[in-house]
Amino acid sequence: MLLPTPKKFTLVAGAAEGATPLNAFDNALLISGIGNLNLVRVSSILPPAAQFVESLDIPPGSLTPTAYGYITSDRPGEQIAAAVGIGFTDDTFGVIMEWEGHGTAEQAEAEVRRMLEEAFRARNLRLSHMMFKSAEHRVERCGCAFAAVALWY
Amino acid sequence: MLLPTPKKFTLVAGAAEGATPLNAFDNALLISGIGNLNLVRVSSILPPAAQFVESLDIPPGSLTPTAYGYITSDRPGEQIAAAVGIGFTDDTFGVIMEWEGHGTAEQAEAEVRRMLEEAFRARNLRLSHMMFKSAEHRVERCGCAFAAVALWY
Amino acid sequence: MLLPTPKKFTLVAGAAEGATPLNAFDNALLISGIGNLNLVRVSSILPPAAQFVESLDIPPGSLTPTAYGYITSDRPGEQIAAAVGIGFTDDTFGVIMEWEGHGTAEQAEAEVRRMLEEAFRARNLRLSHMMFKSAEHRVERCGCAFAAVALWY
Repeated sequence: MLLPTPKKFTLVAGAAEGATPLNAFDNALLISGIGNLNLVRVSSILPPAAQFVESLDIPPGSLTPTAYGYITSDRPGEQIAAAVGIGFTDDTFGVIMEWEGHGTAEQAEAEVRRMLEEAFRARNLRLSHMMFKSAEHRVERCGCAFAAVALWY
Repeated sequence: MLLPTPKKFTLVAGAAEGATPLNAFDNALLISGIGNLNLVRVSSILPPAAQFVESLDIPPGSLTPTAYGYITSDRPGEQIAAAVGIGFTDDTFGVIMEWEGHGTAEQAEAEVRRMLEEAFRARNLRLSHMMFKSAEHRVERCGCAFAAVALWY
Repeated sequence: MLLPTPKKFTLVAGAAEGATPLNAFDNALLISGIGNLNLVRVSSILPPAAQFVESLDIPPGSLTPTAYGYITSDRPGEQIAAAVGIGFTDDTFGVIMEWEGHGTAEQAEAEVRRMLEEAFRARNLRLSHMMFKSAEHRVERCGCAFAAVALWY
């Protein structure tokens, strides 16, 4: 028996300030709607036949396999961003890529798009379509930008 | 079917020297009593109704969801510390925060306390009480301070 | 009920170039034969009685507990390497160590060997034998060296 393979997914993103980097991260998760889950970080495959669901509806504390990117910064004025993307095939698994860094949400998504295109070339798979989610943030004192694909059952 | 949500928890902490940073980490885990488990790092919710148990009694190699903070240093004389804390509500999930850095165990716990207070304000939840565990260490050659909340079943 | 403890293991390693560090990582995973799985990083115990299997044969997207080391670099000409090793006992669990850095695969394995010897001394366990896997890479533009012990069922 394997660990169960996730059957559902959604994309979330958010940005926030916090008193510490971990609080900013926690607040960005809350804004993203997944702040009360136990994220288990995974690299980075959308299981075959996984179904898109608009929003998570699982109990607090659930162990939630999640592919995510994030950046925290305590330099006032800095523009930070994070994005995730999923590349889909017509009939098998998909690939998830994430990016975080300095820039806008639009730039972050453009980076993820290029990463997905390379990931599909490397697998010799046909890329049928993509989904993206991103967040950007201008740091006041201590901020975090976060983007994730959450996987569940 | 979700991954099973943990039902038990404990707090552990420890510090140690090692020949390499990873050995120092491994030795700090052994001193903490969780060195023979497979830690799966999670962010950072205490599931509702989880029960405090004084010590873990699970077989070696068990996959163990764990929220942790740690720091390694190879600068002799440096004072390092790590702390975890849990903020409890009266009737639902709790929040786990961790801190690691330069300072004493007391300072590490004070940081975690402030982080928990902010996490509860952000959730608009009433903080009923807190638990902490921390470790501090004066580096000889290569050291690690580690603190964790382990979750199991 | 605990999360199920893995019953099988294999060692993999690989190195690759990529347009970004995450693509280089993804490509190194593909070359290692585990690029289409969801790696869940664990620290770092081989469960008792786990059985060596030459290659993984699990479906894409499977949640796969994995102990791994990796390094990415975008400095052309740099020599990078990653290695994993498993130290076995005669009758109980084993210990996994990983190393990543600048050097050759041979140097990486020598580091892991020393780390395993220390890990067994720290546990007062007799080290019966070891297995290693490593990869090295001369960076062209952006490269990754990766080595892992994957655990499954």
